[in-house]
Amino acid sequence: MGLARDTRVRWALEEVGQPYEVRLVSFRAMKESEHLKRHPFGQIPTYEEGDLTLFETGAIIFHIAERHSGLLPNNHNARARAITWMFAALNTVEPPILELAIALFQEGDKPWRDERLLLVKERIRSRLQQLAAYLGDAEWLDDAFSAGDLMMVSVLLRLRRSGILDEFPNLAAYVARGEARPAYKKAFADQLAINTAEQPAD
Amino acid sequence: MGLARDTRVRWALEEVGQPYEVRLVSFRAMKESEHLKRHPFGQIPTYEEGDLTLFETGAIIFHIAERHSGLLPNNHNARARAITWMFAALNTVEPPILELAIALFQEGDKPWRDERLLLVKERIRSRLQQLAAYLGDAEWLDDAFSAGDLMMVSVLLRLRRSGILDEFPNLAAYVARGEARPAYKKAFADQLAINTAEQPAD
Repeated sequence: MGLARDTRVRWALEEVGQPYEVRLVSFRAMKESEHLKRHPFGQIPTYEEGDLTLFETGAIIFHIAERHSGLLPNNHNARARAITWMFAALNTVEPPILELAIALFQEGDKPWRDERLLLVKERIRSRLQQLAAYLGDAEWLDDAFSAGDLMMVSVLLRLRRSGILDEFPNLAAYVARGEARPAYKKAFADQLAINTAEQPAD
Repeated sequence: MGLARDTRVRWALEEVGQPYEVRLVSFRAMKESEHLKRHPFGQIPTYEEGDLTLFETGAIIFHIAERHSGLLPNNHNARARAITWMFAALNTVEPPILELAIALFQEGDKPWRDERLLLVKERIRSRLQQLAAYLGDAEWLDDAFSAGDLMMVSVLLRLRRSGILDEFPNLAAYVARGEARPAYKKAFADQLAINTAEQPAD
């Protein structure tokens, strides 16, 4: 509840036009045994469909994309490339961005904070330079919008407050195209409504 | 060449019994335009099959697992769970392990080195505790060996030199079961043979 990764799953479900129900999980309940059965690492989101329970945003979005049209191309090679961009977003672009969050929030009181933030930001810029060079003036990463773009836009959105995204105008425009999609707008508004509503009692 | 992630792809190809050819890439060539066409982030491994070129180890292994039997179960739900473990290995377990490598090699000369190493190792232990609790005394993560185990074992193998893996006997035994598979042994031996042979001229 309230963490950015919920929105990724909502966005995917909106793109493929599948209705869903939300069950909120408090921070305390995330670490309790009932939730740990659904998510061994005590995080969110999780996904339930009949007798299937999944965790990991990447896996949930891939599952949705595989079962419904709209997030993966039909052509075999294009499909494999879209899946590649999902992994690239999560494994190559997001790690230094997560490092920035850790440097700010988990090590924000350490004497090395400021000096390390510069290092971590340079690692992020190095990745974004490569991504910006690849994207050029293309609309999406590989022809049509796919689950790879959904994931990459979601990952880059985490950078907005840092100001780093704006150093790369074509990436900032790419993210803006993602945010302009009706499915993203709906997902974001629904998530925001939850976040501004009353929190579940613990 | 010489980095651990090559072995993951070799292992997958050996598990499904597919022959392959290796093209070595020097560290310098990894950053040149011909390689950047194959891998926008200038890393290895890449994968070529006919007119399809892929990067990202997760995507390559998923592609191999999807096209050949041996790495993903046929049952739909079990297949989705195996894919979940691939993402969990790469996105939940590997990030703090990569942080340790960065703390040692990229920030090894910084005054905060020793104090930060303790913090990063605690983050790794926290993940491994959860993984160890989930695995219990099971042989593999979800019934039969899958691409999820291939990825998780590969990720955990990076920890061996740190000694942290040995703090979790069931995880150490799990990794040993992975290493004992004939496909892993073949992949490891072939990779080692390359690493101990002459390096390509730049």
